[in-house]
Amino acid sequence: LADRAAAHFRALQDRIVAGLEAVDGGGRFGADAWRRAGGGGGVTRVLADGGLFEKAGVAWSDVFGELPPELAALGPGDGRTFRATGVSLVLHPRSPRVPAVHANFRYVEKGDARWFGGGADLTPCYLRVEDVVHFHRAWKDVCDRHVVADHARFKAWCDEYFFLPHRGEARGAGGIFFDDLGRNAPDDGLEEVFAFVRDAGDTFLPAYVPIATRRKDEPWGEREREWQLFRRGRYVEFNLLHDRGTIFGLRTGGRTESILMSLPPLVRWVYDRAVDAGSPEAEMLDALRPRDWLAP
Amino acid sequence: LADRAAAHFRALQDRIVAGLEAVDGGGRFGADAWRRAGGGGGVTRVLADGGLFEKAGVAWSDVFGELPPELAALGPGDGRTFRATGVSLVLHPRSPRVPAVHANFRYVEKGDARWFGGGADLTPCYLRVEDVVHFHRAWKDVCDRHVVADHARFKAWCDEYFFLPHRGEARGAGGIFFDDLGRNAPDDGLEEVFAFVRDAGDTFLPAYVPIATRRKDEPWGEREREWQLFRRGRYVEFNLLHDRGTIFGLRTGGRTESILMSLPPLVRWVYDRAVDAGSPEAEMLDALRPRDWLAP
Repeated sequence: LADRAAAHFRALQDRIVAGLEAVDGGGRFGADAWRRAGGGGGVTRVLADGGLFEKAGVAWSDVFGELPPELAALGPGDGRTFRATGVSLVLHPRSPRVPAVHANFRYVEKGDARWFGGGADLTPCYLRVEDVVHFHRAWKDVCDRHVVADHARFKAWCDEYFFLPHRGEARGAGGIFFDDLGRNAPDDGLEEVFAFVRDAGDTFLPAYVPIATRRKDEPWGEREREWQLFRRGRYVEFNLLHDRGTIFGLRTGGRTESILMSLPPLVRWVYDRAVDAGSPEAEMLDALRPRDWLAP
Repeated sequence: LADRAAAHFRALQDRIVAGLEAVDGGGRFGADAWRRAGGGGGVTRVLADGGLFEKAGVAWSDVFGELPPELAALGPGDGRTFRATGVSLVLHPRSPRVPAVHANFRYVEKGDARWFGGGADLTPCYLRVEDVVHFHRAWKDVCDRHVVADHARFKAWCDEYFFLPHRGEARGAGGIFFDDLGRNAPDDGLEEVFAFVRDAGDTFLPAYVPIATRRKDEPWGEREREWQLFRRGRYVEFNLLHDRGTIFGLRTGGRTESILMSLPPLVRWVYDRAVDAGSPEAEMLDALRPRDWLAP
Protein backbone atom coordinates (compact mmCIF):
# COMPACT_ATOMS: atom_id res chain seq x y z
CA LEU A 1 0.00 0.00 0.00
CA ALA A 2 2.81 2.42 0.89
CA ASP A 3 4.29 2.15 -2.60
CA ARG A 4 0.92 2.64 -4.24
CA ALA A 5 0.18 5.63 -2.01
CA ALA A 6 3.57 7.18 -2.79
CA ALA A 7 3.03 6.72 -6.54
CA HIS A 8 -0.48 8.13 -6.29
CA PHE A 9 0.68 11.23 -4.43
CA ARG A 10 3.51 11.77 -6.91
CA ALA A 11 1.01 11.75 -9.79
CA LEU A 12 -1.38 13.98 -7.81
CA GLN A 13 1.43 16.53 -7.41
CA ASP A 14 1.83 16.61 -11.21
CA ARG A 15 -1.90 17.07 -11.79
CA ILE A 16 -2.18 19.86 -9.25
CA VAL A 17 0.90 21.63 -10.60
CA ALA A 18 -0.51 21.45 -14.13
CA GLY A 19 -3.86 22.83 -12.94
CA LEU A 20 -2.22 25.68 -11.04
CA GLU A 21 0.06 26.63 -13.94
CA ALA A 22 -3.00 26.80 -16.17
CA VAL A 23 -4.78 29.23 -13.85
CA ASP A 24 -1.66 31.24 -12.95
CA GLY A 25 -1.32 32.61 -16.44
CA GLY A 26 2.41 32.66 -17.01
CA GLY A 27 4.25 31.25 -14.00
CA ARG A 28 6.00 27.89 -14.08
CA PHE A 29 6.87 25.65 -11.16
CA GLY A 30 10.47 24.68 -10.64
CA ALA A 31 11.30 21.20 -9.37
CA ASP A 32 13.85 20.35 -6.67
CA ALA A 33 14.44 16.68 -6.08
CA TRP A 34 16.09 15.93 -2.74
CA ARG A 35 17.23 12.89 -0.79
CA ARG A 36 16.90 12.42 2.95
CA ALA A 37 20.00 11.15 4.76
CA GLY A 38 17.95 8.78 6.93
CA GLY A 39 15.97 7.36 4.00
CA GLY A 40 13.73 8.50 1.16
CA GLY A 41 13.34 11.92 -0.36
CA GLY A 42 11.00 14.12 -2.29
CA VAL A 43 10.33 16.64 -5.00
CA THR A 44 9.53 20.21 -3.99
CA ARG A 45 7.91 22.36 -6.63
CA VAL A 46 7.70 26.12 -6.14
CA LEU A 47 6.36 28.89 -8.35
CA ALA A 48 7.49 32.39 -7.33
CA ASP A 49 6.32 35.73 -8.75
CA GLY A 50 3.75 34.24 -11.07
CA GLY A 51 0.72 35.98 -12.49
CA LEU A 52 -1.87 34.89 -9.97
CA PHE A 53 0.47 33.42 -7.36
CA GLU A 54 3.05 35.45 -5.53
CA LYS A 55 4.32 32.14 -4.15
CA ALA A 56 2.96 28.64 -4.61
CA GLY A 57 4.49 25.45 -3.33
CA VAL A 58 3.43 21.86 -3.99
CA ALA A 59 5.63 19.32 -2.25
CA TRP A 60 5.70 15.56 -2.53
CA SER A 61 7.76 13.35 -0.30
CA ASP A 62 8.23 9.71 0.57
CA VAL A 63 10.49 9.28 3.59
CA PHE A 64 11.24 6.35 5.85
CA GLY A 65 13.63 5.29 8.56
CA GLU A 66 13.85 5.15 12.32
CA LEU A 67 12.37 7.69 14.69
CA PRO A 68 14.39 8.87 17.68
CA PRO A 69 12.97 7.22 20.84
CA GLU A 70 11.35 10.41 22.18
CA LEU A 71 9.42 10.85 18.92
CA ALA A 72 8.61 7.16 18.57
CA ALA A 73 6.91 7.37 21.96
CA LEU A 74 4.46 9.99 20.64
CA GLY A 75 1.28 9.03 18.86
CA PRO A 76 0.04 5.62 17.80
CA GLY A 77 1.98 2.56 16.73
CA ASP A 78 4.53 0.42 18.56
CA GLY A 79 8.00 0.49 17.07
CA ARG A 80 10.45 3.07 15.83
CA THR A 81 10.31 2.46 12.09
CA PHE A 82 8.23 4.83 10.04
CA ARG A 83 7.31 5.71 6.50
CA ALA A 84 5.42 8.80 5.49
CA THR A 85 4.39 9.86 2.01
CA GLY A 86 2.13 12.63 0.83
CA VAL A 87 1.48 15.87 -0.94
CA SER A 88 1.38 19.23 0.79
CA LEU A 89 0.60 22.53 -0.86
CA VAL A 90 0.30 26.17 0.15
CA LEU A 91 -0.70 28.92 -2.28
CA HIS A 92 -0.19 32.62 -1.58
CA PRO A 93 -1.87 34.68 -4.30
CA ARG A 94 -0.64 38.18 -5.05
CA SER A 95 -4.13 39.68 -4.96
CA PRO A 96 -5.68 40.21 -1.52
CA ARG A 97 -8.97 39.37 -3.25
CA VAL A 98 -7.90 35.76 -3.84
CA PRO A 99 -7.76 33.53 -0.75
CA ALA A 100 -4.64 31.68 0.30
CA VAL A 101 -5.17 27.95 0.58
CA HIS A 102 -3.48 24.91 2.04
CA ALA A 103 -4.04 21.21 1.42
CA ASN A 104 -2.27 18.06 2.49
CA PHE A 105 -2.87 14.36 1.91
CA ARG A 106 -0.64 11.74 3.47
CA TYR A 107 -0.16 8.09 4.32
CA VAL A 108 1.82 7.14 7.42
CA GLU A 109 3.22 3.92 8.79
CA LYS A 110 4.67 3.98 12.28
CA GLY A 111 5.70 0.73 13.91
CA ASP A 112 2.71 -1.56 13.56
CA ALA A 113 0.21 1.23 12.81
CA ARG A 114 -0.76 2.75 9.46
CA TRP A 115 -3.26 5.42 8.55
CA PHE A 116 -4.19 8.27 6.21
CA GLY A 117 -4.54 11.93 7.05
CA GLY A 118 -5.17 15.13 5.23
CA GLY A 119 -7.35 18.14 4.72
CA ALA A 120 -7.66 21.52 3.11
CA ASP A 121 -8.41 24.96 4.49
CA LEU A 122 -9.09 28.34 2.93
CA THR A 123 -7.62 31.61 4.23
CA PRO A 124 -9.25 34.67 2.66
CA CYS A 125 -8.24 38.24 3.52
CA TYR A 126 -11.74 39.43 2.72
CA LEU A 127 -14.88 37.45 3.34
CA ARG A 128 -16.86 36.41 0.27
CA VAL A 129 -19.49 34.10 1.62
CA GLU A 130 -20.17 32.40 -1.71
CA ASP A 131 -16.48 31.47 -2.02
CA VAL A 132 -16.36 29.95 1.42
CA VAL A 133 -19.60 28.07 0.76
CA HIS A 134 -18.23 26.75 -2.54
CA PHE A 135 -15.09 25.49 -0.80
CA HIS A 136 -16.96 23.79 2.03
CA ARG A 137 -19.52 22.36 -0.41
CA ALA A 138 -16.78 20.64 -2.40
CA TRP A 139 -15.39 18.93 0.71
CA LYS A 140 -18.83 17.98 1.97
CA ASP A 141 -19.65 16.40 -1.38
CA VAL A 142 -16.51 14.30 -1.48
CA CYS A 143 -17.01 13.16 2.11
CA ASP A 144 -20.62 12.25 1.34
CA ARG A 145 -19.44 9.95 -1.46
CA HIS A 146 -17.44 7.79 1.00
CA VAL A 147 -18.78 5.96 4.03
CA VAL A 148 -15.36 6.19 5.70
CA ALA A 149 -15.51 10.00 5.69
CA ASP A 150 -17.54 11.98 8.23
CA HIS A 151 -17.80 15.55 6.97
CA ALA A 152 -19.24 17.00 10.18
CA ARG A 153 -16.40 15.54 12.21
CA PHE A 154 -13.70 16.55 9.68
CA LYS A 155 -15.08 20.09 9.45
CA ALA A 156 -15.09 20.50 13.24
CA TRP A 157 -11.58 18.96 13.41
CA CYS A 158 -10.37 21.59 10.94
CA ASP A 159 -11.89 24.41 13.01
CA GLU A 160 -10.17 23.03 16.08
CA TYR A 161 -6.79 22.43 14.44
CA PHE A 162 -6.35 25.68 12.52
CA PHE A 163 -6.86 27.89 15.53
CA LEU A 164 -4.47 30.43 17.10
CA PRO A 165 -5.16 30.36 20.86
CA HIS A 166 -2.90 33.37 21.50
CA ARG A 167 -5.04 35.39 19.09
CA GLY A 168 -8.40 33.81 19.77
CA GLU A 169 -8.77 33.54 15.98
CA ALA A 170 -9.15 30.77 13.44
CA ARG A 171 -6.44 30.81 10.76
CA GLY A 172 -9.09 31.20 8.10
CA ALA A 173 -12.50 30.04 7.01
CA GLY A 174 -11.88 26.35 7.60
CA GLY A 175 -12.42 23.31 5.44
CA ILE A 176 -11.71 19.75 6.53
CA PHE A 177 -9.00 18.02 8.53
CA PHE A 178 -8.65 14.33 9.31
CA ASP A 179 -6.01 12.07 10.79
CA ASP A 180 -5.61 8.47 11.95
CA LEU A 181 -8.13 7.45 9.30
CA GLY A 182 -8.27 3.69 8.85
CA ARG A 183 -5.84 3.08 11.68
CA ASN A 184 -7.81 0.23 13.19
CA ALA A 185 -9.36 -0.90 9.92
CA PRO A 186 -8.74 -4.24 8.22
CA ASP A 187 -7.03 -4.21 4.81
CA ASP A 188 -10.21 -3.67 2.82
CA GLY A 189 -11.25 -0.86 5.15
CA LEU A 190 -7.91 0.87 4.62
CA GLU A 191 -8.45 0.51 0.87
CA GLU A 192 -11.76 2.34 1.25
CA VAL A 193 -9.94 5.11 3.09
CA PHE A 194 -7.35 5.28 0.30
CA ALA A 195 -10.18 5.60 -2.23
CA PHE A 196 -11.56 8.54 -0.25
CA VAL A 197 -8.13 10.17 -0.01
CA ARG A 198 -7.67 9.83 -3.79
CA ASP A 199 -11.08 11.40 -4.39
CA ALA A 200 -10.29 14.19 -1.90
CA GLY A 201 -6.98 14.89 -3.60
CA ASP A 202 -8.79 15.30 -6.90
CA THR A 203 -11.25 17.63 -5.19
CA PHE A 204 -8.61 20.25 -4.48
CA LEU A 205 -8.54 21.91 -7.89
CA PRO A 206 -12.35 22.14 -8.33
CA ALA A 207 -12.66 23.35 -4.72
CA TYR A 208 -10.18 26.19 -5.19
CA VAL A 209 -9.65 27.14 -8.82
CA PRO A 210 -13.17 28.52 -9.46
CA ILE A 211 -12.72 30.87 -6.49
CA ALA A 212 -9.33 32.08 -7.73
CA THR A 213 -10.66 32.49 -11.27
CA ARG A 214 -13.59 34.67 -10.32
CA ARG A 215 -11.61 36.91 -7.92
CA LYS A 216 -8.29 37.33 -9.68
CA ASP A 217 -9.29 40.33 -11.78
CA GLU A 218 -11.09 42.21 -9.02
CA PRO A 219 -9.35 45.51 -8.25
CA TRP A 220 -7.35 46.15 -5.11
CA GLY A 221 -4.98 48.81 -3.82
CA GLU A 222 -2.63 49.76 -1.00
CA ARG A 223 -5.25 49.29 1.70
CA GLU A 224 -6.04 45.74 0.66
CA ARG A 225 -2.37 44.88 0.19
CA GLU A 226 -1.44 46.18 3.63
CA TRP A 227 -4.24 44.09 5.19
CA GLN A 228 -3.07 41.02 3.29
CA LEU A 229 0.54 41.41 4.50
CA PHE A 230 -0.72 41.87 8.04
CA ARG A 231 -2.98 38.81 7.88
CA ARG A 232 -0.09 36.77 6.51
CA GLY A 233 1.61 37.38 9.85
CA ARG A 234 -1.09 35.27 11.48
CA TYR A 235 -0.37 32.54 8.94
CA VAL A 236 3.30 32.55 9.96
CA GLU A 237 2.39 32.54 13.64
CA PHE A 238 0.16 29.52 13.18
CA ASN A 239 2.68 27.56 11.15
CA LEU A 240 5.66 28.18 13.43
CA LEU A 241 3.90 28.16 16.82
CA HIS A 242 1.15 25.60 16.36
CA ASP A 243 1.30 23.50 13.22
CA ARG A 244 2.24 20.00 14.30
CA GLY A 245 3.34 19.02 10.81
CA THR A 246 5.81 21.92 10.61
CA ILE A 247 7.22 21.45 14.10
CA PHE A 248 7.43 17.66 13.83
CA GLY A 249 9.00 17.92 10.39
CA LEU A 250 11.71 20.30 11.57
CA ARG A 251 12.42 18.24 14.69
CA THR A 252 12.78 15.03 12.74
CA GLY A 253 15.33 16.56 10.42
CA GLY A 254 12.98 17.09 7.50
CA ARG A 255 14.18 19.29 4.64
CA THR A 256 13.81 22.80 6.08
CA GLU A 257 13.27 24.58 2.77
CA SER A 258 10.50 22.16 1.80
CA ILE A 259 8.74 22.44 5.14
CA LEU A 260 8.99 26.23 5.30
CA MET A 261 7.95 26.78 1.68
CA SER A 262 4.55 27.29 3.37
CA LEU A 263 5.62 30.69 4.69
CA PRO A 264 4.25 33.69 2.77
CA PRO A 265 6.59 35.65 0.47
CA LEU A 266 6.12 39.03 2.17
CA VAL A 267 4.69 39.64 5.63
CA ARG A 268 4.08 42.64 7.85
CA TRP A 269 3.71 42.81 11.62
CA VAL A 270 2.12 45.94 13.05
CA TYR A 271 1.96 46.44 16.79
CA ASP A 272 -1.59 46.43 18.17
CA ARG A 273 -3.23 47.11 14.82
CA ALA A 274 -6.80 48.37 15.10
CA VAL A 275 -9.58 47.64 12.62
CA ASP A 276 -12.42 50.03 11.89
CA ALA A 277 -15.83 48.81 13.06
CA GLY A 278 -18.04 47.89 10.14
CA SER A 279 -15.13 47.73 7.65
CA PRO A 280 -14.49 44.76 5.34
CA GLU A 281 -11.46 43.98 7.50
CA ALA A 282 -13.66 43.80 10.62
CA GLU A 283 -16.10 41.59 8.73
CA MET A 284 -13.27 39.16 7.96
CA LEU A 285 -12.09 39.08 11.59
CA ASP A 286 -15.64 38.40 12.69
CA ALA A 287 -15.74 35.37 10.39
CA LEU A 288 -12.64 33.84 12.01
CA ARG A 289 -14.66 31.68 14.34
CA PRO A 290 -16.27 28.34 13.63
CA ARG A 291 -19.46 28.68 11.62
CA ASP A 292 -21.63 26.24 9.71
CA TRP A 293 -21.15 27.70 6.22
CA LEU A 294 -23.49 25.17 4.63
CA ALA A 295 -26.45 25.80 6.92
CA PRO A 296 -29.51 26.64 4.83
CA LEU B 1 13.76 42.71 46.38
CA ALA B 2 10.97 42.06 43.83
CA ASP B 3 9.55 45.55 44.37
CA ARG B 4 12.96 47.16 44.07
CA ALA B 5 13.73 45.15 40.93
CA ALA B 6 10.38 46.12 39.37
CA ALA B 7 10.99 49.79 40.12
CA HIS B 8 14.52 49.58 38.78
CA PHE B 9 13.39 47.98 35.52
CA ARG B 10 10.63 50.56 35.12
CA ALA B 11 13.18 53.35 35.41
CA LEU B 12 15.56 51.51 33.07
CA GLN B 13 12.80 51.37 30.46
CA ASP B 14 12.47 55.16 30.66
CA ARG B 15 16.22 55.71 30.31
CA ILE B 16 16.50 53.36 27.34
CA VAL B 17 13.48 54.92 25.62
CA ALA B 18 14.97 58.40 26.09
CA GLY B 19 18.31 57.24 24.70
CA LEU B 20 16.71 55.61 21.67
CA GLU B 21 14.51 58.60 20.90
CA ALA B 22 17.61 60.77 20.98
CA VAL B 23 19.38 58.61 18.42
CA ASP B 24 16.29 57.94 16.28
CA GLY B 25 16.04 61.55 15.19
CA GLY B 26 12.32 62.18 15.10
CA GLY B 27 10.39 59.13 16.24
CA ARG B 28 8.57 58.98 19.54
CA PHE B 29 7.62 55.91 21.55
CA GLY B 30 3.97 55.40 22.42
CA ALA B 31 3.04 53.89 25.78
CA ASP B 32 0.43 51.18 26.37
CA ALA B 33 -0.26 50.34 29.98
CA TRP B 34 -1.98 46.99 30.44
CA ARG B 35 -3.21 44.85 33.31
CA ARG B 36 -2.97 41.09 33.49
CA ALA B 37 -6.13 39.26 34.58
CA GLY B 38 -4.17 36.86 36.81
CA GLY B 39 -2.15 39.65 38.48
CA GLY B 40 0.15 42.51 37.59
CA GLY B 41 0.64 44.26 34.30
CA GLY B 42 3.07 46.29 32.29
CA VAL B 43 3.84 49.16 29.99
CA THR B 44 4.68 48.40 26.37
CA ARG B 45 6.42 51.17 24.45
CA VAL B 46 6.69 50.97 20.68
CA LEU B 47 8.12 53.35 18.10
CA ALA B 48 7.04 52.64 14.53
CA ASP B 49 8.30 54.28 11.34
CA GLY B 50 10.89 56.41 13.07
CA GLY B 51 13.97 57.91 11.47
CA LEU B 52 16.50 55.25 12.42
CA PHE B 53 14.08 52.58 13.63
CA GLU B 54 11.51 50.97 11.42
CA LYS B 55 10.15 49.36 14.58
CA ALA B 56 11.44 49.54 18.12
CA GLY B 57 9.82 48.06 21.20
CA VAL B 58 10.82 48.42 24.83
CA ALA B 59 8.53 46.53 27.18
CA TRP B 60 8.39 46.53 30.96
CA SER B 61 6.25 44.17 32.96
CA ASP B 62 5.69 43.05 36.53
CA VAL B 63 3.37 40.06 36.68
CA PHE B 64 2.52 37.62 39.42
CA GLY B 65 0.05 34.89 40.25
CA GLU B 66 -0.25 31.13 40.10
CA LEU B 67 1.22 28.92 37.40
CA PRO B 68 -0.83 26.07 35.97
CA PRO B 69 0.49 22.77 37.40
CA GLU B 70 2.14 21.63 34.15
CA LEU B 71 4.14 24.88 33.99
CA ALA B 72 4.89 24.93 37.71
CA ALA B 73 6.53 21.52 37.28
CA LEU B 74 9.06 22.97 34.83
CA GLY B 75 12.25 24.61 35.96
CA PRO B 76 13.44 25.40 39.44
CA GLY B 77 11.45 26.28 42.55
CA ASP B 78 8.85 24.35 44.51
CA GLY B 79 5.41 25.90 44.49
CA ARG B 80 3.04 27.39 41.96
CA THR B 81 3.23 31.08 42.86
CA PHE B 82 5.41 33.24 40.66
CA ARG B 83 6.43 36.82 40.08
CA ALA B 84 8.39 38.02 37.09
CA THR B 85 9.52 41.54 36.34
CA GLY B 86 11.84 42.87 33.69
CA VAL B 87 12.60 44.89 30.62
CA SER B 88 12.71 43.41 27.14
CA LEU B 89 13.60 45.27 23.98
CA VAL B 90 13.94 44.54 20.29
CA LEU B 91 15.07 47.15 17.75
CA HIS B 92 14.60 46.75 14.00
CA PRO B 93 16.39 49.58 12.17
CA ARG B 94 15.25 50.61 8.72
CA SER B 95 18.76 50.57 7.29
CA PRO B 96 20.27 47.16 6.52
CA ARG B 97 23.57 48.74 7.56
CA VAL B 98 22.43 49.08 11.18
CA PRO B 99 22.18 45.82 13.17
CA ALA B 100 19.01 44.72 14.87
CA VAL B 101 19.45 44.14 18.58
CA HIS B 102 17.67 42.47 21.47
CA ALA B 103 18.17 42.80 25.20
CA ASN B 104 16.32 41.54 28.23
CA PHE B 105 16.86 41.83 31.98
CA ARG B 106 14.56 40.12 34.42
CA TYR B 107 13.98 39.00 38.01
CA VAL B 108 11.90 35.90 38.68
CA GLU B 109 10.42 34.32 41.78
CA LYS B 110 8.91 30.87 41.43
CA GLY B 111 7.79 29.03 44.53
CA ASP B 112 10.74 29.15 46.89
CA ALA B 113 13.30 30.05 44.20
CA ARG B 114 14.37 33.47 42.95
CA TRP B 115 16.92 34.52 40.38
CA PHE B 116 17.96 37.04 37.75
CA GLY B 117 18.36 36.48 34.06
CA GLY B 118 19.08 38.50 30.99
CA GLY B 119 21.35 39.21 28.09
CA ALA B 120 21.78 41.07 24.84
CA ASP B 121 22.55 39.94 21.32
CA LEU B 122 23.33 41.73 18.08
CA THR B 123 21.90 40.73 14.69
CA PRO B 124 23.63 42.47 11.79
CA CYS B 125 22.67 41.92 8.15
CA TYR B 126 26.23 42.73 7.08
CA LEU B 127 29.29 41.90 9.08
CA ARG B 128 31.32 44.82 10.37
CA VAL B 129 33.87 43.24 12.64
CA GLU B 130 34.59 46.43 14.60
CA ASP B 131 30.89 46.74 15.47
CA VAL B 132 30.67 43.18 16.73
CA VAL B 133 33.87 43.63 18.71
CA HIS B 134 32.55 46.87 20.25
CA PHE B 135 29.36 45.09 21.31
CA HIS B 136 31.14 42.10 22.83
CA ARG B 137 33.72 44.36 24.50
CA ALA B 138 30.98 46.29 26.30
CA TRP B 139 29.49 43.08 27.74
CA LYS B 140 32.88 41.69 28.67
CA ASP B 141 33.73 44.89 30.51
CA VAL B 142 30.55 44.91 32.57
CA CYS B 143 30.96 41.23 33.42
CA ASP B 144 34.56 41.84 34.46
CA ARG B 145 33.41 44.48 36.94
CA HIS B 146 31.31 41.92 38.87
CA VAL B 147 32.55 38.72 40.49
CA VAL B 148 29.10 37.14 40.06
CA ALA B 149 29.33 37.45 36.26
CA ASP B 150 31.34 35.02 34.14
CA HIS B 151 31.73 36.53 30.68
CA ALA B 152 33.11 33.40 29.01
CA ARG B 153 30.17 31.36 30.26
CA PHE B 154 27.58 34.01 29.40
CA LYS B 155 29.03 34.46 25.92
CA ALA B 156 28.95 30.72 25.23
CA TRP B 157 25.43 30.52 26.67
CA CYS B 158 24.31 33.20 24.21
CA ASP B 159 25.84 31.32 21.28
CA GLU B 160 24.02 28.19 22.39
CA TYR B 161 20.67 29.86 23.05
CA PHE B 162 20.34 32.03 19.95
CA PHE B 163 20.83 29.19 17.53
CA LEU B 164 18.47 27.87 14.83
CA PRO B 165 19.09 24.12 14.62
CA HIS B 166 16.87 23.75 11.54
CA ARG B 167 19.09 26.26 9.72
CA GLY B 168 22.41 25.40 11.32
CA GLU B 169 22.85 29.13 11.90
CA ALA B 170 23.23 31.45 14.85
CA ARG B 171 20.57 34.18 14.97
CA GLY B 172 23.28 36.80 14.83
CA ALA B 173 26.69 37.71 16.12
CA GLY B 174 25.99 36.86 19.76
CA GLY B 175 26.51 38.78 22.97
CA ILE B 176 25.70 37.44 26.41
CA PHE B 177 22.92 35.36 27.93
CA PHE B 178 22.48 34.30 31.54
CA ASP B 179 19.77 32.72 33.65
CA ASP B 180 19.27 31.30 37.16
CA LEU B 181 21.82 33.80 38.39
CA GLY B 182 21.91 33.98 42.20
CA ARG B 183 19.41 31.16 42.56
CA ASN B 184 21.28 29.40 45.30
CA ALA B 185 22.88 32.53 46.71
CA PRO B 186 22.24 34.00 50.16
CA ASP B 187 20.60 37.43 50.34
CA ASP B 188 23.82 39.39 50.02
CA GLY B 189 24.86 37.26 47.06
CA LEU B 190 21.58 37.99 45.32
CA GLU B 191 22.17 41.69 45.97
CA GLU B 192 25.52 41.37 44.18
CA VAL B 193 23.72 39.80 41.25
CA PHE B 194 21.19 42.64 41.24
CA ALA B 195 24.08 45.12 41.16
CA PHE B 196 25.48 43.34 38.10
CA VAL B 197 22.07 43.31 36.39
CA ARG B 198 21.68 47.04 37.02
CA ASP B 199 25.12 47.70 35.56
CA ALA B 200 24.35 45.45 32.58
CA GLY B 201 21.08 47.27 31.94
CA ASP B 202 22.97 50.54 31.83
CA THR B 203 25.45 48.96 29.44
CA PHE B 204 22.85 48.49 26.71
CA LEU B 205 22.88 52.04 25.32
CA PRO B 206 26.69 52.40 25.19
CA ALA B 207 26.96 48.89 23.71
CA TYR B 208 24.54 49.64 20.87
CA VAL B 209 24.11 53.35 20.19
CA PRO B 210 27.67 54.01 18.93
CA ILE B 211 27.21 51.25 16.35
CA ALA B 212 23.88 52.65 15.18
CA THR B 213 25.27 56.15 15.06
CA ARG B 214 28.24 55.31 12.88
CA ARG B 215 26.23 53.15 10.44
CA LYS B 216 22.97 55.01 10.08
CA ASP B 217 24.06 57.32 7.28
CA GLU B 218 25.84 54.67 5.22
CA PRO B 219 24.15 54.20 1.83
CA TRP B 220 22.11 51.15 0.92
CA GLY B 221 19.78 50.12 -1.87
CA GLU B 222 17.39 47.44 -3.06
CA ARG B 223 19.92 44.66 -2.78
CA GLU B 224 20.69 45.39 0.86
CA ARG B 225 17.01 45.88 1.68
CA GLU B 226 16.03 42.56 0.11
CA TRP B 227 18.75 40.81 2.10
CA GLN B 228 17.56 42.49 5.30
CA LEU B 229 13.94 41.38 4.77
CA PHE B 230 15.14 37.86 4.04
CA ARG B 231 17.33 37.73 7.15
CA ARG B 232 14.44 39.01 9.24
CA GLY B 233 12.67 35.76 8.34
CA ARG B 234 15.30 33.92 10.37
CA TYR B 235 14.58 36.25 13.28
CA VAL B 236 10.90 35.31 13.11
CA GLU B 237 11.73 31.63 12.85
CA PHE B 238 13.90 31.81 15.95
CA ASN B 239 11.38 33.73 18.01
CA LEU B 240 8.38 31.56 17.15
CA LEU B 241 10.06 28.15 16.94
CA HIS B 242 12.76 28.35 19.59
CA ASP B 243 12.63 31.34 21.92
CA ARG B 244 11.60 30.01 25.32
CA GLY B 245 10.54 33.44 26.55
CA THR B 246 8.15 33.91 23.63
CA ILE B 247 6.66 30.42 23.79
CA PHE B 248 6.38 30.42 27.59
CA GLY B 249 4.86 33.90 27.57
CA LEU B 250 2.19 32.97 25.05
CA ARG B 251 1.39 29.71 26.84
CA THR B 252 1.00 31.41 30.21
CA GLY B 253 -1.48 33.89 28.80
CA GLY B 254 0.92 36.81 28.55
CA ARG B 255 -0.15 39.84 26.54
CA THR B 256 0.25 38.67 22.94
CA GLU B 257 0.91 42.09 21.42
CA SER B 258 3.65 42.81 23.97
CA ILE B 259 5.33 39.46 23.46
CA LEU B 260 5.16 39.61 19.67
CA MET B 261 6.28 43.23 19.41
CA SER B 262 9.66 41.53 18.84
CA LEU B 263 8.64 40.49 15.32
CA PRO B 264 10.10 42.60 12.51
CA PRO B 265 7.86 45.07 10.69
CA LEU B 266 8.36 43.64 7.20
CA VAL B 267 9.72 40.21 6.35
CA ARG B 268 10.35 38.21 3.21
CA TRP B 269 10.66 34.46 2.74
CA VAL B 270 12.28 33.24 -0.45
CA TYR B 271 12.39 29.53 -1.24
CA ASP B 272 15.91 28.10 -1.25
CA ARG B 273 17.62 31.45 -1.65
CA ALA B 274 21.20 31.20 -2.85
CA VAL B 275 24.02 33.55 -1.88
CA ASP B 276 26.92 34.39 -4.17
CA ALA B 277 30.26 33.07 -2.99
CA GLY B 278 32.52 35.86 -1.79
CA SER B 279 29.67 38.38 -1.50
CA PRO B 280 29.03 40.47 1.63
CA GLU B 281 25.93 38.32 2.19
CA ALA B 282 28.05 35.16 2.15
CA GLU B 283 30.48 36.81 4.55
CA MET B 284 27.63 37.44 6.99
CA LEU B 285 26.39 33.85 6.75
CA ASP B 286 29.88 32.64 7.42
CA ALA B 287 29.96 34.69 10.62
CA LEU B 288 26.81 33.02 11.96
CA ARG B 289 28.73 30.48 13.97
CA PRO B 290 30.30 30.91 17.38
CA ARG B 291 33.54 32.87 17.27
CA ASP B 292 35.69 34.56 19.88
CA TRP B 293 35.31 38.14 18.69
CA LEU B 294 37.63 39.48 21.38
CA ALA B 295 40.56 37.18 20.61
CA PRO B 296 43.69 39.25 19.99
